[in-house]
Amino acid sequence: MLFHVKMIVRLPPDMDPARADKLKADEKALAQRLMEEGKWRHLWRIAGEYANFSVFDVGSVQELHDTLTQLPLFPYMDIEVKAICRHPSSIRQDDR
Amino acid sequence: MLFHVKMIVRLPPDMDPARADKLKADEKALAQRLMEEGKWRHLWRIAGEYANFSVFDVGSVQELHDTLTQLPLFPYMDIEVKAICRHPSSIRQDDR
Amino acid sequence: MLFHVKMIVRLPPDMDPARADKLKADEKALAQRLMEEGKWRHLWRIAGEYANFSVFDVGSVQELHDTLTQLPLFPYMDIEVKAICRHPSSIRQDDR
Amino acid sequence: MLFHVKMIVRLPPDMDPARADKLKADEKALAQRLMEEGKWRHLWRIAGEYANFSVFDVGSVQELHDTLTQLPLFPYMDIEVKAICRHPSSIRQDDR
Amino acid sequence: MLFHVKMIVRLPPDMDPARADKLKADEKALAQRLMEEGKWRHLWRIAGEYANFSVFDVGSVQELHDTLTQLPLFPYMDIEVKAICRHPSSIRQDDR
Amino acid sequence: MLFHVKMIVRLPPDMDPARADKLKADEKALAQRLMEEGKWRHLWRIAGEYANFSVFDVGSVQELHDTLTQLPLFPYMDIEVKAICRHPSSIRQDDR
Amino acid sequence: MLFHVKMIVRLPPDMDPARADKLKADEKALAQRLMEEGKWRHLWRIAGEYANFSVFDVGSVQELHDTLTQLPLFPYMDIEVKAICRHPSSIRQDDR
Amino acid sequence: MLFHVKMIVRLPPDMDPARADKLKADEKALAQRLMEEGKWRHLWRIAGEYANFSVFDVGSVQELHDTLTQLPLFPYMDIEVKAICRHPSSIRQDDR
Amino acid sequence: MLFHVKMIVRLPPDMDPARADKLKADEKALAQRLMEEGKWRHLWRIAGEYANFSVFDVGSVQELHDTLTQLPLFPYMDIEVKAICRHPSSIRQDDR
Amino acid sequence: MLFHVKMIVRLPPDMDPARADKLKADEKALAQRLMEEGKWRHLWRIAGEYANFSVFDVGSVQELHDTLTQLPLFPYMDIEVKAICRHPSSIRQDDR
Repeated sequence: MLFHVKMIVRLPPDMDPARADKLKADEKALAQRLMEEGKWRHLWRIAGEYANFSVFDVGSVQELHDTLTQLPLFPYMDIEVKAICRHPSSIRQDDR
Repeated sequence: MLFHVKMIVRLPPDMDPARADKLKADEKALAQRLMEEGKWRHLWRIAGEYANFSVFDVGSVQELHDTLTQLPLFPYMDIEVKAICRHPSSIRQDDR
Repeated sequence: MLFHVKMIVRLPPDMDPARADKLKADEKALAQRLMEEGKWRHLWRIAGEYANFSVFDVGSVQELHDTLTQLPLFPYMDIEVKAICRHPSSIRQDDR
Repeated sequence: MLFHVKMIVRLPPDMDPARADKLKADEKALAQRLMEEGKWRHLWRIAGEYANFSVFDVGSVQELHDTLTQLPLFPYMDIEVKAICRHPSSIRQDDR
Repeated sequence: MLFHVKMIVRLPPDMDPARADKLKADEKALAQRLMEEGKWRHLWRIAGEYANFSVFDVGSVQELHDTLTQLPLFPYMDIEVKAICRHPSSIRQDDR
Repeated sequence: MLFHVKMIVRLPPDMDPARADKLKADEKALAQRLMEEGKWRHLWRIAGEYANFSVFDVGSVQELHDTLTQLPLFPYMDIEVKAICRHPSSIRQDDR
Repeated sequence: MLFHVKMIVRLPPDMDPARADKLKADEKALAQRLMEEGKWRHLWRIAGEYANFSVFDVGSVQELHDTLTQLPLFPYMDIEVKAICRHPSSIRQDDR
Repeated sequence: MLFHVKMIVRLPPDMDPARADKLKADEKALAQRLMEEGKWRHLWRIAGEYANFSVFDVGSVQELHDTLTQLPLFPYMDIEVKAICRHPSSIRQDDR
Repeated sequence: MLFHVKMIVRLPPDMDPARADKLKADEKALAQRLMEEGKWRHLWRIAGEYANFSVFDVGSVQELHDTLTQLPLFPYMDIEVKAICRHPSSIRQDDR
Repeated sequence: MLFHVKMIVRLPPDMDPARADKLKADEKALAQRLMEEGKWRHLWRIAGEYANFSVFDVGSVQELHDTLTQLPLFPYMDIEVKAICRHPSSIRQDDR
């Protein structure tokens, strides 16, 4: 089941750099693990913004919520979730 | 080069059904050709809306514009384009 | 799997009354069938508006989309879908 | 009498964790008491957001206001209240 | 029980004048009856706009909804309803 | 002359409680004096929000401005002012 | 008493030209009479828009409303009214 | 050349009062000098808001920008600039 | 003197094609003449939208207004004008 | 390849002046180098705002993103990016 997620990160500019770097490193590690597991299907950077478009492939809404809220940067993010499904014109087999 | 595009279709509800069907059929045919060519990489339906999220892979901004404006449904669409690129955390090789 | 849906109906005021009534009757019949099937769990009228809040219980995002788009009033509606899940404070067993 | 309430919680990310946990624990305790009393009828988590949709069943607008404003997290919440009532298509007897 | 209601009327400028006048006359007659019954407590014109602020005093949310939706101008109105109650600083006995 | 005023109070949640209480007490005292003088005609609490709808009856725009800006909570408020006047359908003699 | 008014005119582009010209001529005639009477103090065109900023000097809110609603273009206008008064830094004697 | 400018001042409520007063005094002094020079033509207070509508009469866009950005309160202001010019219906000779 | 202008064109999709083509041809001819005269300095198409960003170089606000309002597509356009001037970091001599 | 970028700078007014000046100086130095390299084609100040409109000429979306995010003021900016291309009416050869 696919969900389109837009994440805008708003880290306070005057945050302690070490702490910010730690948060980002943890975020990256978790994100890459989720991608390897196939849950985090797509992750693109929005040009010029500290934001991304992502597509998650999860088994339930609960799993999506748990996945997003455990992200280290979650407390600093504006998140917009849209449920998506296969478009009748799509030729891709796997865009459920 | 990737562009994230959100398309909201606003066909007048009282449009002549035959004309609407023709527009949709032409739109589908063109969309599928573009997908086969690899230009229209992703196309998902936004659940509950006559709208989609798409990702286009084109050689230039001009090509993106020409592609979108030749869509039969273009005159009836609100379109939002965001340039996207590879996220530093992405493990996918091909999400330029 | 639960989805919270807000529907705002914008029927043209000068629509042929007979046609409007037919649309509404068909909408009511389908809605009640979906409620009997347990798919359309909650349906409340928003006071003072031709709009409702609903909660749908469906097996997939695709099913949600198909359900909403087959509603007779769909072409005249602004629809906002939010995926919802069980709140950690909820005492209800069934609010997956 | 039913009210649909959307609550978005904006706890400062750098709040003292102990204090945040205390607030959340108190919030949960009060919420569950209100649910047991039947006042807080529905409480769903909005996927990906520190926010919820709720339905309150109260005897008056004053009671709704008092209930919401005594929530420990109230000072940190954006709240939108919509009065709701029985939809003519609803088959549920109790969705006054 | 009090509700604050903002009504913005959007009559099509090219509506048949006779029909518009009939609608307005019916609206006025019903409004005044509701005011005499004490349901429509306050009705003020917003300067420079075809809009009003009103306060309704009704026994239930359902009654509010039925009252508003039976207004002849209802199909041409954007309506925003806010439940209101007695302010702790108010010296008026009757602003429940 | 009547003005409809919406006030949203945004006191910082971490303000010193004593100071907040002093501000609120001063606000209440001044508000009640203005109500007794007939300037602050109506004051209703918007359910679920730290906000109110008010109607002021003043002799000039200047008086309205001076009245609002001397409120102790003024620096913490978002205020929207709308000039209102008698509605042609109103049966009240005094809703100038 | 001064009111700042922003008027955006939305004449249907396909309106009968003769009718549009008549409306505009009547609007101009009335506007100029009101300016000669000193009620319509300032009238500026917003560059690039079929819109204006105006300042009205009237005796009451009712007079403002009557003045605006009798404008021939009123049915085709979005109007925003803001009550204004003398700024403490102003050196002009007459900007009540 | 005329520019319509809306300025909303957002001084932090907990700013050191002496510093706030100094800023306001400097702002007033500069504003009055600019008014005497004829650059700051109109300055009205928006009732109920720490905001104003102004009209500037300057020789160039650069001069407008320099004038606004040297205002002591500039760092605390949201500013909206609209270029304005003579309205064809205006009877004033000098509203270039 | 430079003005940044965003133009969004909203031609009715069901406009008579011949009339639409005539409007567009006239628009193009006038636009190119204005570019040759140096008034219309820059004109870029916004990818995916029937809209453009432009920079006009004119002698006065009046000239800007007259230029924009004589465009054949003006009645079908949403226009946003922003006065711009030389940026202190710009190395271009001519970006007054 | 051209991108239109709007940058709004929101430096905290109470930032240490020396640090703010350093940031601005670094920003100016980098901006001017990018302009000399032809990447930062246009840079205009929006009158009355701490904001600019820019046009970037880059080889890829990635290059645009890297360029913008390395700007010293990036953490304090709201940035809106729009991909632009040659307008069919443009007479300029180089507005790809």
